[in-house]
Amino acid sequence: MSLSPWRSHLARNLSQHLSQPQSRYLQLATVGMDGRPANRTIVFRGFLDRPDQLKTDQLKFVTDVRSQKASHIQHNPYGEVCWYFTKTREQFRIAGTLHLITSDEPNPSMQQARRIGWQELSDSGRSQFAWADPGQPSADSSEISLGEPPDRDHPLKHFCLLLLEPTQVDHLELRGNPQSRCLYVCDLDRNWSSQSINP
Amino acid sequence: MSLSPWRSHLARNLSQHLSQPQSRYLQLATVGMDGRPANRTIVFRGFLDRPDQLKTDQLKFVTDVRSQKASHIQHNPYGEVCWYFTKTREQFRIAGTLHLITSDEPNPSMQQARRIGWQELSDSGRSQFAWADPGQPSADSSEISLGEPPDRDHPLKHFCLLLLEPTQVDHLELRGNPQSRCLYVCDLDRNWSSQSINP
Repeated sequence: MSLSPWRSHLARNLSQHLSQPQSRYLQLATVGMDGRPANRTIVFRGFLDRPDQLKTDQLKFVTDVRSQKASHIQHNPYGEVCWYFTKTREQFRIAGTLHLITSDEPNPSMQQARRIGWQELSDSGRSQFAWADPGQPSADSSEISLGEPPDRDHPLKHFCLLLLEPTQVDHLELRGNPQSRCLYVCDLDRNWSSQSINP
Repeated sequence: MSLSPWRSHLARNLSQHLSQPQSRYLQLATVGMDGRPANRTIVFRGFLDRPDQLKTDQLKFVTDVRSQKASHIQHNPYGEVCWYFTKTREQFRIAGTLHLITSDEPNPSMQQARRIGWQELSDSGRSQFAWADPGQPSADSSEISLGEPPDRDHPLKHFCLLLLEPTQVDHLELRGNPQSRCLYVCDLDRNWSSQSINP
Protein backbone atom coordinates (compact mmCIF):
# COMPACT_ATOMS: atom_id res chain seq x y z
CA MET A 1 0.00 0.00 0.00
CA SER A 2 1.49 3.34 -0.98
CA LEU A 3 1.12 6.26 1.41
CA SER A 4 -1.90 8.53 0.97
CA PRO A 5 -0.94 11.70 -0.90
CA TRP A 6 -1.31 14.06 2.10
CA ARG A 7 0.96 11.92 4.30
CA SER A 8 4.20 13.22 2.80
CA HIS A 9 3.20 16.82 3.65
CA LEU A 10 2.32 15.85 7.22
CA ALA A 11 5.58 13.87 7.58
CA ARG A 12 7.58 16.88 6.38
CA ASN A 13 5.91 19.12 8.97
CA LEU A 14 6.50 16.61 11.76
CA SER A 15 10.19 16.31 10.86
CA GLN A 16 10.56 20.10 10.74
CA HIS A 17 9.15 20.34 14.29
CA LEU A 18 11.07 17.47 15.94
CA SER A 19 12.56 19.92 18.46
CA GLN A 20 9.06 20.98 19.60
CA PRO A 21 7.24 18.20 21.46
CA GLN A 22 4.08 20.36 21.51
CA SER A 23 3.88 20.05 17.72
CA ARG A 24 2.27 16.65 18.41
CA TYR A 25 -0.57 18.39 20.26
CA LEU A 26 -3.64 19.04 18.13
CA GLN A 27 -7.31 19.84 18.69
CA LEU A 28 -10.17 17.35 18.31
CA ALA A 29 -13.73 18.52 17.68
CA THR A 30 -16.69 16.23 18.42
CA VAL A 31 -20.44 16.79 18.77
CA GLY A 32 -22.34 16.28 22.03
CA MET A 33 -25.74 14.73 22.59
CA ASP A 34 -27.18 18.29 22.63
CA GLY A 35 -25.84 18.92 19.08
CA ARG A 36 -23.22 21.39 20.31
CA PRO A 37 -19.55 21.15 19.40
CA ALA A 38 -16.75 20.39 21.85
CA ASN A 39 -13.04 20.93 21.32
CA ARG A 40 -9.96 19.86 23.26
CA THR A 41 -6.23 19.31 22.86
CA ILE A 42 -5.07 15.72 22.38
CA VAL A 43 -1.66 14.16 21.71
CA PHE A 44 -0.83 12.43 18.41
CA ARG A 45 0.60 8.95 19.12
CA GLY A 46 1.58 7.99 15.55
CA PHE A 47 -0.23 5.97 12.92
CA LEU A 48 -1.72 2.54 13.59
CA ASP A 49 0.40 -0.43 12.49
CA ARG A 50 -1.47 -3.41 11.10
CA PRO A 51 -0.56 -6.89 12.38
CA ASP A 52 1.57 -7.30 9.20
CA GLN A 53 3.50 -4.17 10.34
CA LEU A 54 2.22 -2.03 7.47
CA LYS A 55 1.23 1.49 8.43
CA THR A 56 -2.38 2.54 8.01
CA ASP A 57 -3.76 6.07 7.68
CA GLN A 58 -5.42 5.83 11.11
CA LEU A 59 -4.15 8.38 13.62
CA LYS A 60 -3.68 7.05 17.16
CA PHE A 61 -4.65 8.88 20.35
CA VAL A 62 -5.50 7.70 23.85
CA THR A 63 -8.40 8.62 26.09
CA ASP A 64 -10.33 7.66 29.21
CA VAL A 65 -13.65 5.86 28.66
CA ARG A 66 -15.13 8.15 31.35
CA SER A 67 -14.20 11.33 29.42
CA GLN A 68 -16.70 13.57 27.66
CA LYS A 69 -15.18 12.82 24.27
CA ALA A 70 -15.69 9.05 24.71
CA SER A 71 -19.42 9.52 25.31
CA HIS A 72 -19.63 11.94 22.38
CA ILE A 73 -18.00 9.39 20.07
CA GLN A 74 -20.35 6.60 21.16
CA HIS A 75 -23.24 8.84 20.14
CA ASN A 76 -21.74 10.51 17.02
CA PRO A 77 -18.55 8.93 15.60
CA TYR A 78 -17.52 11.89 13.45
CA GLY A 79 -14.57 14.06 14.40
CA GLU A 80 -12.27 16.66 12.91
CA VAL A 81 -8.79 17.39 14.18
CA CYS A 82 -7.11 20.71 13.52
CA TRP A 83 -3.32 20.55 13.52
CA TYR A 84 -1.40 23.79 13.19
CA PHE A 85 2.38 23.81 12.78
CA THR A 86 3.87 27.08 14.01
CA LYS A 87 7.30 27.06 12.28
CA THR A 88 6.02 26.19 8.80
CA ARG A 89 2.66 27.98 9.22
CA GLU A 90 0.81 25.01 7.74
CA GLN A 91 -2.55 23.67 8.94
CA PHE A 92 -4.07 20.21 8.47
CA ARG A 93 -7.76 19.71 9.10
CA ILE A 94 -8.35 15.95 9.17
CA ALA A 95 -11.97 14.80 9.24
CA GLY A 96 -13.12 11.23 9.61
CA THR A 97 -14.62 8.51 11.76
CA LEU A 98 -13.49 7.92 15.33
CA HIS A 99 -13.15 4.41 16.74
CA LEU A 100 -12.89 3.85 20.48
CA ILE A 101 -10.98 0.66 21.39
CA THR A 102 -12.12 -0.13 24.94
CA SER A 103 -11.36 -2.97 27.36
CA ASP A 104 -14.38 -4.81 25.85
CA GLU A 105 -12.94 -4.79 22.31
CA PRO A 106 -13.72 -8.18 20.68
CA ASN A 107 -11.15 -8.01 17.83
CA PRO A 108 -7.86 -9.56 19.04
CA SER A 109 -5.64 -7.43 16.77
CA MET A 110 -7.36 -4.26 18.04
CA GLN A 111 -6.96 -5.49 21.65
CA GLN A 112 -3.27 -5.96 20.84
CA ALA A 113 -3.11 -2.40 19.42
CA ARG A 114 -4.70 -1.14 22.66
CA ARG A 115 -2.05 -2.98 24.70
CA ILE A 116 0.73 -1.45 22.58
CA GLY A 117 -0.83 2.00 23.05
CA TRP A 118 -0.73 1.44 26.81
CA GLN A 119 2.89 0.26 26.79
CA GLU A 120 3.97 3.26 24.72
CA LEU A 121 2.75 5.68 27.44
CA SER A 122 5.06 6.99 30.15
CA ASP A 123 4.50 5.95 33.77
CA SER A 124 2.87 9.30 34.47
CA GLY A 125 0.68 8.92 31.38
CA ARG A 126 -0.50 5.51 32.60
CA SER A 127 -1.09 6.83 36.13
CA GLN A 128 -3.74 9.25 34.85
CA PHE A 129 -6.06 6.34 34.17
CA ALA A 130 -6.08 5.58 37.91
CA TRP A 131 -7.28 9.11 38.71
CA ALA A 132 -10.81 9.99 39.79
CA ASP A 133 -13.62 10.34 37.24
CA PRO A 134 -12.55 13.14 34.83
CA GLY A 135 -14.83 16.18 34.65
CA GLN A 136 -16.60 15.37 37.94
CA PRO A 137 -16.38 17.71 40.95
CA SER A 138 -12.97 17.33 42.53
CA ALA A 139 -12.53 14.45 44.88
CA ASP A 140 -11.00 14.92 48.27
CA SER A 141 -7.25 15.09 47.63
CA SER A 142 -6.89 11.96 49.78
CA GLU A 143 -8.80 10.07 47.09
CA ILE A 144 -6.33 10.98 44.36
CA SER A 145 -4.05 8.04 43.82
CA LEU A 146 -0.42 9.12 43.56
CA GLY A 147 0.98 5.70 44.42
CA GLU A 148 2.88 3.19 42.31
CA PRO A 149 2.43 3.53 38.52
CA PRO A 150 0.11 0.90 37.00
CA ASP A 151 1.50 -2.31 35.48
CA ARG A 152 3.03 -1.69 32.04
CA ASP A 153 1.63 -4.92 30.59
CA HIS A 154 -2.00 -4.72 31.73
CA PRO A 155 -3.99 -1.67 30.60
CA LEU A 156 -6.31 -0.28 33.27
CA LYS A 157 -9.97 -0.75 32.36
CA HIS A 158 -10.65 2.97 31.72
CA PHE A 159 -7.88 3.16 29.14
CA CYS A 160 -8.99 3.43 25.48
CA LEU A 161 -7.09 3.63 22.27
CA LEU A 162 -8.76 6.20 20.03
CA LEU A 163 -8.39 5.93 16.24
CA LEU A 164 -9.27 8.50 13.61
CA GLU A 165 -9.87 7.03 10.13
CA PRO A 166 -9.49 10.05 7.81
CA THR A 167 -11.94 10.64 4.98
CA GLN A 168 -10.98 14.24 4.15
CA VAL A 169 -7.84 16.34 4.65
CA ASP A 170 -7.72 20.10 4.11
CA HIS A 171 -4.10 21.29 3.91
CA LEU A 172 -3.48 25.05 4.12
CA GLU A 173 -0.11 26.76 3.67
CA LEU A 174 -0.21 30.30 5.02
CA ARG A 175 3.25 31.19 3.72
CA GLY A 176 3.27 32.66 0.25
CA ASN A 177 1.09 35.24 -1.40
CA PRO A 178 -1.42 34.05 -2.35
CA GLN A 179 -1.61 31.24 0.22
CA SER A 180 -2.17 27.72 -1.06
CA ARG A 181 -4.73 25.15 -0.01
CA CYS A 182 -5.42 21.60 -1.16
CA LEU A 183 -8.38 19.35 -0.36
CA TYR A 184 -7.87 15.55 -0.31
CA VAL A 185 -11.00 13.38 -0.35
CA CYS A 186 -11.18 9.60 0.13
CA ASP A 187 -13.78 7.56 -1.77
CA LEU A 188 -15.49 4.37 -0.52
CA ASP A 189 -12.70 2.23 -2.05
CA ARG A 190 -10.16 4.18 0.02
CA ASN A 191 -8.72 5.92 -3.03
CA TRP A 192 -7.69 9.52 -2.48
CA SER A 193 -8.19 12.36 -4.93
CA SER A 194 -6.99 15.93 -4.48
CA GLN A 195 -7.96 19.36 -5.69
CA SER A 196 -6.45 22.79 -5.26
CA ILE A 197 -9.00 25.12 -3.62
CA ASN A 198 -9.10 28.82 -2.76
CA PRO A 199 -7.58 29.67 0.65
CA MET B 1 -18.77 45.55 35.67
CA SER B 2 -16.01 43.49 37.24
CA LEU B 3 -14.12 41.04 35.07
CA SER B 4 -15.40 37.48 34.90
CA PRO B 5 -13.39 35.19 37.17
CA TRP B 6 -11.65 33.22 34.37
CA ARG B 7 -10.45 36.42 32.65
CA SER B 8 -7.51 37.00 35.01
CA HIS B 9 -6.15 33.51 34.23
CA LEU B 10 -6.48 34.11 30.50
CA ALA B 11 -4.85 37.56 30.81
CA ARG B 12 -1.91 36.04 32.72
CA ASN B 13 -1.38 33.46 29.97
CA LEU B 14 -1.56 36.09 27.24
CA SER B 15 0.99 38.28 29.02
CA GLN B 16 3.32 35.30 29.51
CA HIS B 17 3.21 34.60 25.76
CA LEU B 18 3.62 38.17 24.42
CA SER B 19 6.79 37.13 22.57
CA GLN B 20 4.86 34.41 20.66
CA PRO B 21 2.36 35.91 18.20
CA GLN B 22 1.02 32.40 17.50
CA SER B 23 -0.27 32.24 21.09
CA ARG B 24 -3.25 34.25 19.76
CA TYR B 25 -4.09 31.41 17.38
CA LEU B 26 -6.74 29.05 18.70
CA GLN B 27 -9.10 26.42 17.29
CA LEU B 28 -12.83 26.92 16.74
CA ALA B 29 -15.21 23.96 16.53
CA THR B 30 -18.62 24.31 14.88
CA VAL B 31 -21.24 21.84 13.64
CA GLY B 32 -22.19 21.48 9.97
CA MET B 33 -25.64 20.96 8.46
CA ASP B 34 -24.83 17.21 8.32
CA GLY B 35 -24.32 17.14 12.12
CA ARG B 36 -20.57 16.60 11.80
CA PRO B 37 -18.01 18.74 13.60
CA ALA B 38 -15.55 21.07 11.89
CA ASN B 39 -12.42 22.60 13.38
CA ARG B 40 -10.05 25.31 12.21
CA THR B 41 -7.46 27.77 13.49
CA ILE B 42 -8.60 31.36 13.99
CA VAL B 43 -6.89 34.47 15.38
CA PHE B 44 -8.00 36.11 18.65
CA ARG B 45 -8.57 39.85 18.07
CA GLY B 46 -9.21 40.91 21.67
CA PHE B 47 -12.43 41.41 23.60
CA LEU B 48 -15.31 43.53 22.30
CA ASP B 49 -15.50 47.07 23.66
CA ARG B 50 -18.97 48.44 24.32
CA PRO B 51 -19.80 51.95 23.05
CA ASP B 52 -19.13 53.19 26.62
CA GLN B 53 -15.61 51.72 26.26
CA LEU B 54 -16.20 49.02 28.86
CA LYS B 55 -14.83 45.62 27.96
CA THR B 56 -17.25 42.73 27.52
CA ASP B 57 -16.52 39.00 27.75
CA GLN B 58 -17.12 38.58 24.01
CA LEU B 59 -14.09 37.33 22.10
CA LYS B 60 -13.53 38.96 18.70
CA PHE B 61 -12.50 37.15 15.53
CA VAL B 62 -12.93 37.96 11.85
CA THR B 63 -14.19 35.76 9.03
CA ASP B 64 -15.44 35.78 5.45
CA VAL B 65 -19.21 35.44 5.00
CA ARG B 66 -18.49 32.93 2.21
CA SER B 67 -16.49 30.63 4.55
CA GLN B 68 -17.74 27.25 5.76
CA LYS B 69 -17.79 28.45 9.38
CA ALA B 70 -20.13 31.35 8.53
CA SER B 71 -22.71 28.97 7.04
CA HIS B 72 -22.30 26.60 10.00
CA ILE B 73 -22.98 29.44 12.44
CA GLN B 74 -26.09 30.59 10.57
CA HIS B 75 -27.45 27.06 11.00
CA ASN B 76 -26.13 26.26 14.53
CA PRO B 77 -24.80 29.19 16.58
CA TYR B 78 -22.91 27.10 19.15
CA GLY B 79 -19.14 26.97 19.14
CA GLU B 80 -16.27 25.94 21.36
CA VAL B 81 -12.76 27.32 21.07
CA CYS B 82 -9.78 25.41 22.39
CA TRP B 83 -6.82 27.59 23.34
CA TYR B 84 -3.62 25.90 24.39
CA PHE B 85 -0.69 27.90 25.75
CA THR B 86 2.59 26.08 25.20
CA LYS B 87 4.89 27.82 27.73
CA THR B 88 2.51 27.59 30.70
CA ARG B 89 0.90 24.31 29.57
CA GLU B 90 -2.57 25.66 30.30
CA GLN B 91 -5.70 25.06 28.20
CA PHE B 92 -8.89 27.08 28.00
CA ARG B 93 -11.97 25.54 26.40
CA ILE B 94 -14.45 28.36 25.90
CA ALA B 95 -17.97 27.36 24.83
CA GLY B 96 -20.74 29.75 23.91
CA THR B 97 -22.86 31.37 21.25
CA LEU B 98 -21.37 32.76 18.06
CA HIS B 99 -22.64 35.99 16.50
CA LEU B 100 -21.80 36.89 12.92
CA ILE B 101 -21.77 40.66 12.30
CA THR B 102 -22.20 40.98 8.53
CA SER B 103 -22.52 43.96 6.17
CA ASP B 104 -26.32 43.70 6.73
CA GLU B 105 -26.06 44.20 10.50
CA PRO B 106 -28.93 46.49 11.62
CA ASN B 107 -27.52 47.53 15.03
CA PRO B 108 -25.41 50.73 14.59
CA SER B 109 -23.06 49.98 17.49
CA MET B 110 -22.41 46.51 16.08
CA GLN B 111 -21.84 48.01 12.60
CA GLN B 112 -19.34 50.35 14.28
CA ALA B 113 -17.64 47.36 15.95
CA ARG B 114 -17.41 45.68 12.54
CA ARG B 115 -15.77 48.81 11.08
CA ILE B 116 -13.24 48.90 13.95
CA GLY B 117 -12.49 45.19 13.38
CA TRP B 118 -11.77 46.01 9.73
CA GLN B 119 -9.53 48.96 10.59
CA GLU B 120 -7.54 46.87 13.08
CA LEU B 121 -6.52 44.41 10.33
CA SER B 122 -3.27 44.78 8.42
CA ASP B 123 -3.37 45.61 4.70
CA SER B 124 -2.66 41.97 3.86
CA GLY B 125 -5.41 40.87 6.26
CA ARG B 126 -7.90 43.19 4.52
CA SER B 127 -6.76 42.02 1.07
CA GLN B 128 -7.88 38.46 1.81
CA PHE B 129 -11.51 39.58 1.66
CA ALA B 130 -10.97 40.48 -2.01
CA TRP B 131 -9.80 36.95 -2.82
CA ALA B 132 -11.88 34.39 -4.71
CA ASP B 133 -14.60 32.36 -2.92
CA PRO B 134 -12.81 30.41 -0.11
CA GLY B 135 -13.05 26.61 -0.30
CA GLN B 136 -14.06 26.59 -3.98
CA PRO B 137 -11.86 24.99 -6.64
CA SER B 138 -8.94 27.29 -7.33
CA ALA B 139 -9.56 30.09 -9.72
CA ASP B 140 -7.26 30.79 -12.58
CA SER B 141 -4.32 32.63 -11.00
CA SER B 142 -5.17 35.64 -13.20
CA GLU B 143 -8.41 35.96 -11.24
CA ILE B 144 -6.62 36.33 -7.91
CA SER B 145 -6.51 39.97 -7.04
CA LEU B 146 -3.11 41.04 -5.76
CA GLY B 147 -3.64 44.73 -6.49
CA GLU B 148 -4.02 47.68 -4.16
CA PRO B 149 -5.14 46.88 -0.60
CA PRO B 150 -8.82 47.70 0.07
CA ASP B 151 -9.82 51.02 1.64
CA ARG B 152 -9.11 51.07 5.40
CA ASP B 153 -12.38 52.90 6.19
CA HIS B 154 -14.87 50.82 4.19
CA PRO B 155 -15.10 47.13 5.01
CA LEU B 156 -15.52 44.91 1.96
CA LYS B 157 -18.93 43.23 1.87
CA HIS B 158 -17.62 39.71 2.60
CA PHE B 159 -15.94 40.85 5.82
CA CYS B 160 -17.63 39.74 9.07
CA LEU B 161 -16.81 40.37 12.66
CA LEU B 162 -17.32 37.13 14.60
CA LEU B 163 -18.13 37.28 18.31
CA LEU B 164 -18.10 34.44 20.84
CA GLU B 165 -20.27 35.08 23.91
CA PRO B 166 -18.92 32.58 26.48
CA THR B 167 -21.28 30.54 28.63
CA GLN B 168 -18.76 27.98 29.94
CA VAL B 169 -14.99 27.98 30.41
CA ASP B 170 -12.99 24.86 31.26
CA HIS B 171 -9.50 25.82 32.47
CA LEU B 172 -6.91 23.02 32.71
CA GLU B 173 -3.40 23.40 34.13
CA LEU B 174 -1.22 20.48 33.06
CA ARG B 175 1.70 21.52 35.27
CA GLY B 176 1.63 20.04 38.73
CA ASN B 177 0.88 16.55 39.97
CA PRO B 178 -2.03 16.10 40.16
CA GLN B 179 -3.04 18.56 37.44
CA SER B 180 -5.74 21.10 38.25
CA ARG B 181 -8.91 21.95 36.39
CA CYS B 182 -11.67 24.46 37.04
CA LEU B 183 -15.06 24.78 35.35
CA TYR B 184 -16.71 28.24 35.13
CA VAL B 185 -20.40 28.36 34.22
CA CYS B 186 -22.48 31.44 33.41
CA ASP B 187 -26.14 31.62 34.42
CA LEU B 188 -28.91 33.45 32.54
CA ASP B 189 -28.23 36.63 34.55
CA ARG B 190 -24.60 36.52 33.35
CA ASN B 191 -23.31 35.63 36.80
CA TRP B 192 -20.37 33.22 36.81
CA SER B 193 -19.87 30.38 39.27
CA SER B 194 -16.85 28.08 39.42
CA GLN B 195 -16.08 24.60 40.60
CA SER B 196 -12.89 22.59 40.82
CA ILE B 197 -13.24 19.38 38.77
CA ASN B 198 -11.10 16.30 38.21
CA PRO B 199 -8.57 16.69 35.36
